[in-house]
Amino acid sequence: MTGETPRTTPSRDADRVHRDRGAADRILAESLIGHVGALDPQGRPVVLPVAVAPDGDQVLFHGSTGSRMFRALASGGPMCLTITHVDGLVLARSAFESSMNYRCLVVLGTAQVLDGAQKERALRTLTDHLTPGRWDSLRPMRAKEVAATTVLALPLVEFSVKIREGGPEDPDDADWPVWAGSLPIRVSAGPAIPEPGSEQRMAPALPRALR
Amino acid sequence: MTGETPRTTPSRDADRVHRDRGAADRILAESLIGHVGALDPQGRPVVLPVAVAPDGDQVLFHGSTGSRMFRALASGGPMCLTITHVDGLVLARSAFESSMNYRCLVVLGTAQVLDGAQKERALRTLTDHLTPGRWDSLRPMRAKEVAATTVLALPLVEFSVKIREGGPEDPDDADWPVWAGSLPIRVSAGPAIPEPGSEQRMAPALPRALR
Repeated sequence: MTGETPRTTPSRDADRVHRDRGAADRILAESLIGHVGALDPQGRPVVLPVAVAPDGDQVLFHGSTGSRMFRALASGGPMCLTITHVDGLVLARSAFESSMNYRCLVVLGTAQVLDGAQKERALRTLTDHLTPGRWDSLRPMRAKEVAATTVLALPLVEFSVKIREGGPEDPDDADWPVWAGSLPIRVSAGPAIPEPGSEQRMAPALPRALR
Repeated sequence: MTGETPRTTPSRDADRVHRDRGAADRILAESLIGHVGALDPQGRPVVLPVAVAPDGDQVLFHGSTGSRMFRALASGGPMCLTITHVDGLVLARSAFESSMNYRCLVVLGTAQVLDGAQKERALRTLTDHLTPGRWDSLRPMRAKEVAATTVLALPLVEFSVKIREGGPEDPDDADWPVWAGSLPIRVSAGPAIPEPGSEQRMAPALPRALR
């Protein structure tokens, strides 16, 4: 049990809450993007999607040095990173009991700016998370490209996981004459679309999220 | 052109920005969830997923009256709702030019609490967005269920849309010997899993997001 603070104690559905790092790690392993919440200069929330990758006890993400949000986060602003996998629709016999199956990781805290060797290693980790083993085959990053990128690490310290799975839970309505059950949702990769000249090369490996 | 304010002028990739309601409406039509950013009592951002549905000039979402976030939003706190469809991985010959294809709608503002007939109509809209035509076949909502639900409407006034599509744009690296192209990503429904006794009934209609 880690990461428990008043902020990471969800106010609803305590039976769906998990606090172990394993649950967080499994969500991160299958992630493509997360949604980052930060504050604008007036202290209002702004939410933007970012590519994410797990890296031990932290979550990595990156963006342009020119991005307003990345400048706010790099200067130590408070943030929230939320990663949600929607696994299905739960269709009960009433609207009230209908729901979704999902796995959601919420991480709160402050990000650290990575530099030097840590930054380059993190860029490799981000690339290889989305396309396993691809980094070594790519044209190496140039110094000016590295300089134009802000790489941030959010510690996996204050976090919570909420998971809902299974069918509807509405035994009192079992006789209501409507189809009930669940509808699984799957995220998958379509056939790769090669650039001209690329057809004869080996297509890239798929990330866990798309396998 | 609507919705343009300093806050909705993205700081990067101006060529990917759209401001027409049509672009926003197309993203909403295919949405299952969005990520809501709100403030905790200390003014720090918190991001949680919610089911969403378009409703004319506003976006609907709902949650428990017991939810801390919904209480903060119902009392007029500033919020951001971000809906992101990840359409593919863009695999350039360098890490720097690699990207994702996506469609992202960001809506800023303050939500309105719906009550009475508006609230019940919004609950129908939310249900029928995820499962077209299902509301009329469900066991009707009870007064106490309606009372336990907060239904919020966020005006589609201050918003921006960012879209990236197509293959990599790295002509200077065209000779680098690695596969390059894009990998489409698709969200789809698996075979429905009926509850016992439901097998003989007609399975529900799929939302646009899963067709």
